Amino acid sequence: MKIDGKRLKDDIETNAEFGALDVDGHGRTVLTGTEANRQAREYFVERLEDAGLEVRVDAVGNIVGRWTPESADPNANPVAAGSHLDSVPEGGIFDGPLGVYSALEAVRAMQDAGVEPSRPVEVVSFTEEEGQRFADGLLGSSVAVGERSLEDVLELRDGQTTLEEALETMGFRGEGRIDASEWDSWLELHIEQSERLERAELAVGVVTTITGITHCHVDVVGEANHAGATPMPERIDALVAASEFVQDVERGANEVGETTVGTVGKLNVRPNATNVVPGAVEMGVDIRDVSYDAMNELVSLARESLSRLEAERGVETRFLREFDVEPIEMSERCRQAAHDAGDDSDIELLDLHSGAAHDTMNIAKVTDTTMLFAQSRDGISHNPAEWTEWEDCASATQVLAGALSSLAN
Amino acid sequence: MKIDGKRLKDDIETNAEFGALDVDGHGRTVLTGTEANRQAREYFVERLEDAGLEVRVDAVGNIVGRWTPESADPNANPVAAGSHLDSVPEGGIFDGPLGVYSALEAVRAMQDAGVEPSRPVEVVSFTEEEGQRFADGLLGSSVAVGERSLEDVLELRDGQTTLEEALETMGFRGEGRIDASEWDSWLELHIEQSERLERAELAVGVVTTITGITHCHVDVVGEANHAGATPMPERIDALVAASEFVQDVERGANEVGETTVGTVGKLNVRPNATNVVPGAVEMGVDIRDVSYDAMNELVSLARESLSRLEAERGVETRFLREFDVEPIEMSERCRQAAHDAGDDSDIELLDLHSGAAHDTMNIAKVTDTTMLFAQSRDGISHNPAEWTEWEDCASATQVLAGALSSLAN
Repeated sequence: MKIDGKRLKDDIETNAEFGALDVDGHGRTVLTGTEANRQAREYFVERLEDAGLEVRVDAVGNIVGRWTPESADPNANPVAAGSHLDSVPEGGIFDGPLGVYSALEAVRAMQDAGVEPSRPVEVVSFTEEEGQRFADGLLGSSVAVGERSLEDVLELRDGQTTLEEALETMGFRGEGRIDASEWDSWLELHIEQSERLERAELAVGVVTTITGITHCHVDVVGEANHAGATPMPERIDALVAASEFVQDVERGANEVGETTVGTVGKLNVRPNATNVVPGAVEMGVDIRDVSYDAMNELVSLARESLSRLEAERGVETRFLREFDVEPIEMSERCRQAAHDAGDDSDIELLDLHSGAAHDTMNIAKVTDTTMLFAQSRDGISHNPAEWTEWEDCASATQVLAGALSSLAN
Repeated sequence: MKIDGKRLKDDIETNAEFGALDVDGHGRTVLTGTEANRQAREYFVERLEDAGLEVRVDAVGNIVGRWTPESADPNANPVAAGSHLDSVPEGGIFDGPLGVYSALEAVRAMQDAGVEPSRPVEVVSFTEEEGQRFADGLLGSSVAVGERSLEDVLELRDGQTTLEEALETMGFRGEGRIDASEWDSWLELHIEQSERLERAELAVGVVTTITGITHCHVDVVGEANHAGATPMPERIDALVAASEFVQDVERGANEVGETTVGTVGKLNVRPNATNVVPGAVEMGVDIRDVSYDAMNELVSLARESLSRLEAERGVETRFLREFDVEPIEMSERCRQAAHDAGDDSDIELLDLHSGAAHDTMNIAKVTDTTMLFAQSRDGISHNPAEWTEWEDCASATQVLAGALSSLAN
């Protein structure tokens, strides 16, 4: 069985035209419910139908194409693979579409090679993975695993528009709910978005764990004052205190472990005028690790930093752990299927973890999963400079096809 | 000679009604060219005329009332005093108006006591000291000393409106230019805006020096990246680097000298999202001291900090000293007149410097000046909580009247 790299490239390039940006590199903006999103969805449905797959669209706009060959028991739990077609604003052309079209290409390769699976195979595109318009992200998959109710999700709003209206406008407000717990297993191919494969000079990786994510909201309150008339010893400068916290988060992440990352990504100063001693600072902190204990350790260090700043600098602080997802292990069975597929095709695979969130974080709660990563240039993503060599796309898709084929066997 | 504290209080309280805010404390918003500004100006002109002063308004809206008693040579260089009537948004009722109405009250007290000065005495209100609408501040006084040309200043814009149009709308676009270099001397009474008088338990201070001010614009450029997928050692985090700079500015200000202050008052992060490693930070830095050498020393320390961050953290930095005013000494003659007036009235005076900018910074370039400070509660200013006890207003005005009287003798 051999996948067709040209066919895959054509699909990804055609998909890249929807919402394409006139900028250097290869950029696109495809937000849920936009004309670009409608075009991308309609082209995907056409391609599924061209390959003879049976298409369903659920109430939240998730799209599934099912291949049920004669060899398969139509009542067996299907094996599924896919990703998403939406993008961040000014995103790249691989993040999402590579996973969707590689899954379709895997099915076409199985068809061409006369593979006779015993289970149906499903090719999936989830709605609003990037969370840029109606939700925080992983929207379609959260409904597919029953974490969020259809009713709640359809009422999510972007200004005056509900998600339901946006889906209806595109003609993609279907019926019912695609239920991921019915899948025997799930695979998602994605670009790596970091540089470990590049450094290892390998095209394809297998994900062992997806890190947990904690988002913390931190307030540091001091005393706004005249920058000229307030001597240094009389100040309670919220920004000087906050800048110690930023350092402490970095130091803590370096100390806790090799896979620990801690980021103060957002920081707003009030009143934010050059001639006023800062009175208050709010920050957004992102903490991730493959170990939940390590995440908790860094959260503790961050809290200790704030206590110290209260004592030493007289500021008041607030710490809110407002979002928290534990790390999740990928299934041994799925990882082995990927490694076997690599061996069959002479493609060496690197075991690595995912520091980014993906729909697979949700699916892993209800069935066996893993992810495949394709090398991405300089680790750049969410950017028109995002790039993965076509031959690496093909290698990763070859591994995906082999793994799907053996899981569906 | 005794000033009338009740008359002064009435004027300041009436003036406080123009642009008054319905908030706790005593707040007002009086921006150049607004209805509140027109009312404040008209009331001031009425009060000048009630006291028999001859009123002139120049092309930039500076208002001067001249008292030329029979004892005075009308061609002698006048002695002048005053301040401003505009405020910051949601400012207090003393910052500016105390200096304007205390000058008027000083003249009225001299009139009541039959003082016979040999020079005319002028009571002045400068346009847009706070720089909240058309300029950066000290606007009217910069024209009065010839630093800015009338032509340029009248074309300053707030959106579609020029300063000239704003002045015409209020009926305060006068003719010519009030020339501060013709004044024999100039005094400005202002609230202290810090806590040195409060700590010394004294009502009135005499300013020895007004600090210089440097504003620097700093850019720190790193690499925006995925907060989950980018391991700590691979980051070039602009915010972590900038937070070291914030610490270095504080440390430097503490080291350079007791009167040195350094403030990073403004800090903006790009892209400023919790889950993205900060790619760039821009900062606004305020540096002041009574010694220009000390200011330059702190500027050097700030530049060294950036060089170190470039070497140690791989960021790129830019440093622009975009605004720079040297410290300016107050005149010995004017300070002595203030001290003599204090002695005459049994009011003990504290010598102190001004860390804040005032119109007197400009006037001091062309004639002899000093400032008087009145104690302000907790040093709070630019805020409806700004407060100065009425008896302290009266004491400071008594000193002002005595000093004006002796300078005009």
